[in-house]
Amino acid sequence: MLAEFDLIRRYLMPSQKLNAKDGVALGGGDDAALLVPQANHQLAVSVDTSVVDVHFPHDAPAFAVGHRALAVALSDLAAMGADPRWCFMALTLDQRTFFDDAAIHAWIKDFADGFHSLCQQQSTTLAGGDVTSGALSIGVTVMGEVLKGRALTRAGARPGDMIAVTGALGGGAGGLALWQRGERDLKHPLLRRYLLPEPRLAAGVVLRDMATAAMDISDGLLADLAHLRAASKVGAIIDVESLPLAETLIESLGLEEARNAALSGGDDYELLVTLAPENVVNAQRDLRKQGLALTVIGQCSETLGVEGIAPYSKAGWQHFNEGTP
Amino acid sequence: MLAEFDLIRRYLMPSQKLNAKDGVALGGGDDAALLVPQANHQLAVSVDTSVVDVHFPHDAPAFAVGHRALAVALSDLAAMGADPRWCFMALTLDQRTFFDDAAIHAWIKDFADGFHSLCQQQSTTLAGGDVTSGALSIGVTVMGEVLKGRALTRAGARPGDMIAVTGALGGGAGGLALWQRGERDLKHPLLRRYLLPEPRLAAGVVLRDMATAAMDISDGLLADLAHLRAASKVGAIIDVESLPLAETLIESLGLEEARNAALSGGDDYELLVTLAPENVVNAQRDLRKQGLALTVIGQCSETLGVEGIAPYSKAGWQHFNEGTP
Repeated sequence: MLAEFDLIRRYLMPSQKLNAKDGVALGGGDDAALLVPQANHQLAVSVDTSVVDVHFPHDAPAFAVGHRALAVALSDLAAMGADPRWCFMALTLDQRTFFDDAAIHAWIKDFADGFHSLCQQQSTTLAGGDVTSGALSIGVTVMGEVLKGRALTRAGARPGDMIAVTGALGGGAGGLALWQRGERDLKHPLLRRYLLPEPRLAAGVVLRDMATAAMDISDGLLADLAHLRAASKVGAIIDVESLPLAETLIESLGLEEARNAALSGGDDYELLVTLAPENVVNAQRDLRKQGLALTVIGQCSETLGVEGIAPYSKAGWQHFNEGTP
Repeated sequence: MLAEFDLIRRYLMPSQKLNAKDGVALGGGDDAALLVPQANHQLAVSVDTSVVDVHFPHDAPAFAVGHRALAVALSDLAAMGADPRWCFMALTLDQRTFFDDAAIHAWIKDFADGFHSLCQQQSTTLAGGDVTSGALSIGVTVMGEVLKGRALTRAGARPGDMIAVTGALGGGAGGLALWQRGERDLKHPLLRRYLLPEPRLAAGVVLRDMATAAMDISDGLLADLAHLRAASKVGAIIDVESLPLAETLIESLGLEEARNAALSGGDDYELLVTLAPENVVNAQRDLRKQGLALTVIGQCSETLGVEGIAPYSKAGWQHFNEGTP
């Protein structure tokens, strides 16, 4: 079994030859990695654990499990407007759940592919990690950099600022619903949204200089907006009809449930931002260059609370594992 | 249940009011923490996952579980000679394993006490984390700083260097054996060694300027020495009779098994270092000021492999979970 884990380590650990260009003075294989932060920058750091049957189904494709575990962590860096630099992965894996060694190898290879290809796509260097035995879970620590004082936070929104979201909403919840109904075609746009979310890092960097506040949408728009409102001490007026809905979401759920999914479903990993009205057009133009929409869905108000969401406010959305974060 | 987790977050998350002194520009509660690294330093980063019934018994005291999860991670920073700065905790907790809410609260409170008091003792700031639902495990990311190019690694040992260890060996394995025999008095020196290991951070900082190579002893002296020998491309001659044995280890196991535990038992979290013969006395004097012994146990040789450990080399030690890292 130790040999098994050595093999796993070889699949997973530092994905490329690490060097000065990656800001890594010493990679995996010693007691700790040695990283070289840039002068005059702050480090944005976030940790996220993805647990089987809590955050993803036990029969999710291994490639998606690897991709998703990293994506949800990187999404936090996107929300800060940070440039991603390094990540660390702590994989806990229960070998007894596999039929044989070949099945473990196949799973690990696909899992590593999913993780590594997102690393490459987002210029993130896997600088170290840990492999342990136990119920399947993936702990990911991501580290990004941002010029001192330039990070986006949840706290800067002002009354009068417009509220906008990147991309489209409801796809996370809609994809999960489809998965639970037995859909397994990863080419389906909703399944892709749920299993292979794209962290909006490039958008975060662009919005860094235009937005007044930002966060990522992981728990559902309304729940996350509540965090942003609380941090910024503002209220919000939402125009439900303007919510950008994920492709095929209405066909799949009907309009009412689609809006419910967009408001409360979660797992979308889009950015929720506020910005001065005069910056909206510029921000939309710059994101369009990335092929990404930025849709105004409301405005910040002085009156605390949120308006405009009846009759959706009470319906909510049945989450995968209600009540477990 | 969400309220439950909010409560847990309050217990665990940023333990003190974070401020510039701690190098934290923004603490928990946003998408990511913002840290302020010192100029001209490298970051030493390590992640360690502690899983119930793999790394610690399910009935271990919560205080010890919290302490130990952080200690084993900080031990990696000690081995680099890094000054500890920040840590992040990802706690996964299965509420169904508790009798009632009061039992959860009591456990969390003790767990947090164990974690926070080691933070304080080792000047480490808990800067963020994540709480999820699932089989009990604690993922800890630790970050330390070290002046550029000054970190200790496993790779610098040269033939002729003396091999030394801090403190005493075998206590981790001896303590586990006692625990398995039903001993529950945490004042017992061996149980303390196993459940409340002390990461040798101050020793690592002192040795940084004198040692040629270092690592921490987590898998057992021989296994870890093999890593150091491979990284440094040296052999080793060990004097088994000189091994410093943990207090009460011989009474508990007998001399032969005590030496076996010291050679192969693991979980000691002492430092294994190599240093030029002329630096030994100074290093011993400086560590004595910390109340810590530094014992020479052998010497590096040009001939690869390890000499002097027969008849112990084959016996080995039965680990808690043989073959699972």
